[in-house]
Amino acid sequence: MSNNVESTLKPLFEEINNLKPQFIERLTKAVAIPSVSGDESLRPKVVEMAHFLKQELTNLGAQDIQLKPLGKQPPPVSTEGLELPPIVLARFGSDPAKKTVLVYGHYDVQPALLEDGWHSDPFTLVEKDSKLFGRGSTDDKGPVMGWLNSIHAHNKLGLELPVNLVCCFEGMEESGSLGLDELIAREANAYFKGVDTVCISDNYWLGTKKPVLTYGLRGCNYYQIIVNGPGADLHSGIFGGVIHEPMTDLIKVMGQLVDVDGTINIPGVNEMVAPLTEEESKLYDPIEFDVDELNLASGSKTAIYQDKKDILMHRWRYPSLSLHGIEGAFSAGGAKTVIPAKVSGKFSIRTVPDMDSDKLTQYVIDFVNKRFAELKSPNTLKCELIHDGNYWKSDPFNESFTAAAKATKLVWNIDPDFTREGGSIPITITFEEQLKTNVLLLPMGKGDDGAHSINEKLDVANYIEGVKTLSAYLHYYANA
Amino acid sequence: MSNNVESTLKPLFEEINNLKPQFIERLTKAVAIPSVSGDESLRPKVVEMAHFLKQELTNLGAQDIQLKPLGKQPPPVSTEGLELPPIVLARFGSDPAKKTVLVYGHYDVQPALLEDGWHSDPFTLVEKDSKLFGRGSTDDKGPVMGWLNSIHAHNKLGLELPVNLVCCFEGMEESGSLGLDELIAREANAYFKGVDTVCISDNYWLGTKKPVLTYGLRGCNYYQIIVNGPGADLHSGIFGGVIHEPMTDLIKVMGQLVDVDGTINIPGVNEMVAPLTEEESKLYDPIEFDVDELNLASGSKTAIYQDKKDILMHRWRYPSLSLHGIEGAFSAGGAKTVIPAKVSGKFSIRTVPDMDSDKLTQYVIDFVNKRFAELKSPNTLKCELIHDGNYWKSDPFNESFTAAAKATKLVWNIDPDFTREGGSIPITITFEEQLKTNVLLLPMGKGDDGAHSINEKLDVANYIEGVKTLSAYLHYYANA
Repeated sequence: MSNNVESTLKPLFEEINNLKPQFIERLTKAVAIPSVSGDESLRPKVVEMAHFLKQELTNLGAQDIQLKPLGKQPPPVSTEGLELPPIVLARFGSDPAKKTVLVYGHYDVQPALLEDGWHSDPFTLVEKDSKLFGRGSTDDKGPVMGWLNSIHAHNKLGLELPVNLVCCFEGMEESGSLGLDELIAREANAYFKGVDTVCISDNYWLGTKKPVLTYGLRGCNYYQIIVNGPGADLHSGIFGGVIHEPMTDLIKVMGQLVDVDGTINIPGVNEMVAPLTEEESKLYDPIEFDVDELNLASGSKTAIYQDKKDILMHRWRYPSLSLHGIEGAFSAGGAKTVIPAKVSGKFSIRTVPDMDSDKLTQYVIDFVNKRFAELKSPNTLKCELIHDGNYWKSDPFNESFTAAAKATKLVWNIDPDFTREGGSIPITITFEEQLKTNVLLLPMGKGDDGAHSINEKLDVANYIEGVKTLSAYLHYYANA
Repeated sequence: MSNNVESTLKPLFEEINNLKPQFIERLTKAVAIPSVSGDESLRPKVVEMAHFLKQELTNLGAQDIQLKPLGKQPPPVSTEGLELPPIVLARFGSDPAKKTVLVYGHYDVQPALLEDGWHSDPFTLVEKDSKLFGRGSTDDKGPVMGWLNSIHAHNKLGLELPVNLVCCFEGMEESGSLGLDELIAREANAYFKGVDTVCISDNYWLGTKKPVLTYGLRGCNYYQIIVNGPGADLHSGIFGGVIHEPMTDLIKVMGQLVDVDGTINIPGVNEMVAPLTEEESKLYDPIEFDVDELNLASGSKTAIYQDKKDILMHRWRYPSLSLHGIEGAFSAGGAKTVIPAKVSGKFSIRTVPDMDSDKLTQYVIDFVNKRFAELKSPNTLKCELIHDGNYWKSDPFNESFTAAAKATKLVWNIDPDFTREGGSIPITITFEEQLKTNVLLLPMGKGDDGAHSINEKLDVANYIEGVKTLSAYLHYYANA
């Protein structure tokens, strides 16, 4: 079967090489539309970007193109009656004999201003040193155009797509994906009926040299500890030394949650972590990464671990606890002699398999209450969960990942690293739960693309080879 | 001698009673000028208030009245070229055979708006339930008018003042007393030459029933601990668990500074505190105060001590350490998953006799550095003093306090409590140092006057008996 796939892909890859100027032109047009979802004044541009996609999809022969309205943007919002940008749905083929792949991407971008330090206008795609500079080049207009380019190449060659392809492109990803969860729920048994797998190209290689496939994300449980004392903020000259200060209580409790080496001191937490299997352990060995890369990324030499495997496992497969700050205390520059009456300490725990969110919360609250009780303070304390988002872990050996691994190997001539990420992409879990299928994260860009930063770029090679990878993935998956 | 004083004071007190309507009218006129020093748009009103004082002083026969310019207000300031309000100087008599008393007060006030919750217009003095409501009634226009009223009564009676009186009234007290230190230094051997003692009426009785004389104030050393780690704020999903987080280090160090019962854990600090003498200890016994009053003031039941003497001593004569907050950490509502790169923990220590500010700072820095070193963190820490202001303690048995005690006893028919305060009044120390004399704090208003609050008031009795007390003080002091 594989030989068959590869002989199909050979002319397709040649066609992709030939179409490079058109592909760059397509991305140039997309980048030129400043579809910044976080800037309400640019909302018409976000909508314009949806219409641009509709036109491209039409030109490529898509069926049943829909711009799904999501209603008004919920508060807080400055522009009264502001409409959310639509979600663009389209399909290519509906052959019951074929597998169906849903591809997700987003057409909105982060804000960008030349004066932030861009070398050139962020909304004019510039090719320099074999890199394509522009806002959205890698996040996420490059990958979205990547799917269109793949179809374009198939069409040009008169080659039928090996799967039914369902496109779901949203315009609010950079602003909390408002309305997306609900849309997925609504369309699960409608537009998205029959989807076999979901492929998302919206993350990055771990480093700059080796392609990766991403099979896991940590979750996040966010907590606050509220300590309440006096009826109002007090003057430390008058009350210092004679009342129990809420800040003292809070700092003492917060200081016991975690050690400087990252060890979480809450009983029960580490015990919930899934044991490391031989199979998983092996996945870390080939990964291209070292402590220097971590130091470069953190801009410091503050790494807890020096060993590659330790670093990656503590980023991806072990929980972590970070103290974020304190609400209600003095936080400005200078000096203010206040005794804050009510302070809320904020911290979060990154969660991993097989941690149970409810159990975790109970462990946290029990621990905090116990430590506070030991202080024998007359102040009151309440510890509560502000929000939680589950971790996600897929099977890196399933059909979809195996197809993506073959595609990557064929295009890049190297086996991909199997990576996880420390942060969350909530939509991954929504797709899995609502569509009752699995999700593959198949990144196009590199770790140094500067997704939310100035001078965002996508290497020309990643863009073109990325189109080949996406295409090959579809063919291998169809034949798996 | 005392009999002589009392026979002089008898008709003077009668005159003061007779002049009550005029005294209230004087305060009404003063309150009507909204001399808010913190509101740049009202600066002309502050200046108008200075001219009002000049006119009153002229009418009362003062000599050498000067409105001392202080130059432009230093930045930050919104109004370009904004002039500081002048300091009003005046003298009554310069008889070398008499002692010379400098009286200090301030003619500016805190902001006040009816919509803040005032029952009546804050700049219209209203008499209700034997109380005079209005901004500045007790802080500090009442006491300033008190001195003018005393002279008024002497003049009306044709009674010579028993001392030379030097008036120093400033217009920026509520805004940091800008320019005052420099003026005192300049005039120490000029306008203020020959001053024997300084009397300040700008604080309050401890409670509401017993008059007090105040002989001490705590100082304040304000510190920050800066912990620096990564080159920029980081995402806790990506970096949580793999780098040493500055917040963890800071919270652990801050948590060791002080216990929940207020005990300062920094070696050497408590050892510097002056031992309690029998004489000082006795001063606490008669004081009208209890834990209920502390609870009422703090709006809670968070008192560390239940015993009156313990409370007062820990407020006045022992140091305290308060944790104020953290700059650079997340401090808003909601949830943000940031790992702050640089955080500055702020705390202050209230200082008392015989603590040495430089030694204290060394102890603090040594302690913080030692605790941080134990953490073995690769982050960097710096602990530094932001500012210090010395404590002040006078001899409550000196001539000036003794005269004030006699005056209080005569007017209120009760011995005053000898109190200290937990906060600072830096000008007290400046007067002592520059004029090489001692200072007496002789409050007019009560503990519930609401100085910086809404519905600020001064009891009519405190205003009128206050004029008698100030007058009697001058006579007793002259004859001591």
